[in-house]
Amino acid sequence: MGQPPGYGTFADRAVVLDDPPLLLDLQGIDVDGTEAQRLLPALERAFEEMRALEAGGIANPDEGRRVGHYWLRAPDLAPDPELRQAIERTIDEVRRFAAAVHDGSIAPRPGTRFSDVLHIGIGGSALGPQLVADALGTPDDPLGIRFLDNTDPEGIERTFSELGDRLETTLVVVVSKSGGTPETRNGMEEAIARLRARGLDPAAHLVAVTGEGSALWRRAEEQRFAGRFPMWDWVGGRTSVTSAVGLLPMALCGHDAAAFLDGARAMDAATRVPDPYANPAARLAVAWHVAGEGRGARDMVVIPYRDRLGLFARYLQQLVMESLGKERDRDGRIVHQGLSVYGNKGSTDQHAYVQQLRDGLDNFFALLVGTLEDRLVGAPLEVEPGVTSGDFLAGFLLGTRRALLERGRRVITLWLPRTDARALGALIALFERTVGLYASLVNVNAYHQPGVEAGKRAAAEVLSLQRALLDALSGEEGALRTAPEWAERTGHAGLAVEAFWVLERLAADPRRPVRREGPSDPVRARYGFVS
Amino acid sequence: MGQPPGYGTFADRAVVLDDPPLLLDLQGIDVDGTEAQRLLPALERAFEEMRALEAGGIANPDEGRRVGHYWLRAPDLAPDPELRQAIERTIDEVRRFAAAVHDGSIAPRPGTRFSDVLHIGIGGSALGPQLVADALGTPDDPLGIRFLDNTDPEGIERTFSELGDRLETTLVVVVSKSGGTPETRNGMEEAIARLRARGLDPAAHLVAVTGEGSALWRRAEEQRFAGRFPMWDWVGGRTSVTSAVGLLPMALCGHDAAAFLDGARAMDAATRVPDPYANPAARLAVAWHVAGEGRGARDMVVIPYRDRLGLFARYLQQLVMESLGKERDRDGRIVHQGLSVYGNKGSTDQHAYVQQLRDGLDNFFALLVGTLEDRLVGAPLEVEPGVTSGDFLAGFLLGTRRALLERGRRVITLWLPRTDARALGALIALFERTVGLYASLVNVNAYHQPGVEAGKRAAAEVLSLQRALLDALSGEEGALRTAPEWAERTGHAGLAVEAFWVLERLAADPRRPVRREGPSDPVRARYGFVS
Repeated sequence: MGQPPGYGTFADRAVVLDDPPLLLDLQGIDVDGTEAQRLLPALERAFEEMRALEAGGIANPDEGRRVGHYWLRAPDLAPDPELRQAIERTIDEVRRFAAAVHDGSIAPRPGTRFSDVLHIGIGGSALGPQLVADALGTPDDPLGIRFLDNTDPEGIERTFSELGDRLETTLVVVVSKSGGTPETRNGMEEAIARLRARGLDPAAHLVAVTGEGSALWRRAEEQRFAGRFPMWDWVGGRTSVTSAVGLLPMALCGHDAAAFLDGARAMDAATRVPDPYANPAARLAVAWHVAGEGRGARDMVVIPYRDRLGLFARYLQQLVMESLGKERDRDGRIVHQGLSVYGNKGSTDQHAYVQQLRDGLDNFFALLVGTLEDRLVGAPLEVEPGVTSGDFLAGFLLGTRRALLERGRRVITLWLPRTDARALGALIALFERTVGLYASLVNVNAYHQPGVEAGKRAAAEVLSLQRALLDALSGEEGALRTAPEWAERTGHAGLAVEAFWVLERLAADPRRPVRREGPSDPVRARYGFVS
Repeated sequence: MGQPPGYGTFADRAVVLDDPPLLLDLQGIDVDGTEAQRLLPALERAFEEMRALEAGGIANPDEGRRVGHYWLRAPDLAPDPELRQAIERTIDEVRRFAAAVHDGSIAPRPGTRFSDVLHIGIGGSALGPQLVADALGTPDDPLGIRFLDNTDPEGIERTFSELGDRLETTLVVVVSKSGGTPETRNGMEEAIARLRARGLDPAAHLVAVTGEGSALWRRAEEQRFAGRFPMWDWVGGRTSVTSAVGLLPMALCGHDAAAFLDGARAMDAATRVPDPYANPAARLAVAWHVAGEGRGARDMVVIPYRDRLGLFARYLQQLVMESLGKERDRDGRIVHQGLSVYGNKGSTDQHAYVQQLRDGLDNFFALLVGTLEDRLVGAPLEVEPGVTSGDFLAGFLLGTRRALLERGRRVITLWLPRTDARALGALIALFERTVGLYASLVNVNAYHQPGVEAGKRAAAEVLSLQRALLDALSGEEGALRTAPEWAERTGHAGLAVEAFWVLERLAADPRRPVRREGPSDPVRARYGFVS
């Protein structure tokens, strides 16, 4: 049983920010040891690279793109006036659009008013808005919001059945940078079919947030969607929450988008300072490097002690893993970098897996997030004399922190004053910067995602295979063959396993013209066509 | 770019179950290689230990307890008639209670009827019911359900504000085995205060699910709660979903609890077979061992391709990490065992972190879960000619599986026919058994959680410290001291860091009689009392 380092070490390693207010506690990670000292030159380069990126340099060389999410909250820093104006114009258009929805001048039909938002998007087009809605939403918001973030037909049915008749006053916001994300396209088609089935005009319900010139962008113009907002190629999906992607749902739900942007802007300023000690993002990047030995050797377990931050770990999971999980470094060397992230919320997670964190594998470092204020609304109740539910919550955070430190586990704690819009903007900006600096430290490109394409390509092959199998089976009515035999006949011998699963799925659906003879078994099952 | 092993290997390694219907695809893990062969004797012992456990042996020696979750769905297997009768009686009482709630004979007040359930519990007392509610709930259920699974005052406020006036017809189910879980106690006190504030009789709304004889059990009797159901000491929280903990909310919400139990029972039968190849739990346990080198060397990333299974990864996270994350093995040797688990749902997660899974760290194996049927309700829409949203969903699963296999990543795929109550019961039972067998393979006790206590103790110390600080500050009005000085004066010199955070929190709350002089800084901040 170890003793955590004492108060002096705690005070030395702490980073205190006044604006935005933040306390970063690094008592549990050796951020001033030899290993950390060795990073100082690389950190200087990271500051330099960040300066070049913010000045408009090409930070994503294989896609030839600039990276501009920092400009979204400080348009005056944009490298040219056109960009600045585009950002300012979009912020203004979002605000005016939301106001028109609220006052009924944009409405589904004359005499009605929008009551709900259905946000259709996936990955970077959903997770930021989901985090914000969960962190800031109340039952009194002018519009409620729901999300379709998948292409699961059961999930789609559930969402529409929860909406029920409210679909008639639902604004459907479709978010896809490329305009061609299949999950999002499918969700949109399912929404359009249901609007039509009720005799409604889909276009009056639809808003597109997409790249200027994409197929969705043009469709929104041709079919006169209720609204259309741009996604720029210099904003990555996982850092798009301060673009129209995040601002539009915030404004529609009545959340303080201006304060959110202001919090992010203030944090950007604080993390722009090229000081390895005073800059909290630099401090965090060093802490990640030390804890993970610069190669993601330990997972980051993210536990915010607030129900409203219950999606924050998933938000960071996407931001961190998609940015850092790379096969090659920027010099083309194979490095297999990354940093695995998971977690939910405290103290709930203590009852789920702190048993393992304390006693089991030394394969993680913890990032705990606390808030200083007890509750923003309502009166505190004393559940014991002088003690509130919030005191318990903070007690559990401090208790877990100590229990982990005693076992030599690595712990970072971050304290915010509260979880309002400004603090949330600041929190997100802090980790955007940390990821950028850390990527420089380990020399990977944080701004592309080449590995995602392979899965998409393979999925498209499976759909082609399905079409080919249906053609082949229907062309030979009565023939019964095994999955490898059908795969072979359709010229997809290399996809025999996939053919088995496709045929199993088709045979499981009584509405599909495929039946199986024999047991559901990869060797014995044979499949044929039923007309 | 590797080729995954071919169809023959796929077929050899597949496990096909007829009842409950299940297809387990182990193409992506070498479950028949030398390493796996070496496990066969240990697997024989694991089967033997499982037999002894099911027969009523003491499986949790340091707590002197039997482990009986398998009896909950097959009471005739319980080792003595009293247990069998207690299980059967409770199943019957749950059914009758729910029926009385539905027909209004148990009601908040004469002439009213319960409309909602508020389930208060944390960890094992919440996650099973949450998973089930998310997997099976519909807007047409006889009662809606919400959860308080934390002691966050903001989260508590949000839940009650969402309930609004429906609190007057809300049944409050309080679940705590010990009857003394602070988070749950706090949630109950907050509920009682709100019921009282509306002039309602709290007891008419309250149901306790707790250990017979616990403080909560006695309180439920004395204050005549609307209902009371037992938790037995031979059922662990993380395996309690087939006890009253899970059955009561299922029955109240109108889900098919009998089918759920039946699915679990059928899976128990299939995984009781001491055959290392035909038993899917044994096969999975071997796969975990091979993939994680018997020491949790790789995380398990759980991605079910169904929105309704969006909590399944968290459910497994608790079941696996709390069961396996142990400092010592059963012979007292320090081993630091465990298996880290995370994930959310597909294809959504592909847009979040499959980039890293494919290109980045080789520190995981994936567990993908698919369902064969397209959708249970509603008509499939063709989003492209001949292709449905569900085809895309399955295509993404198969595409990701292939993209990972091509990179030599380890993948397990599990196919269910659908996600109804019976399949869900079977799925949970499969992993309960897998965890039990795997724990035997690595020689740890899966049925205790000694590491959880340290955090609880440390949290209690923080609350004592808070009380002592408030006493000390109020006893010296006008005195201003730093956190370490106050810690010293209260005899808690070793808790100076915790004192800093406690004082910061108290000073941040204008309703608390503590103020800070100077900046929020561990060295310079000084705190005093305000009367």
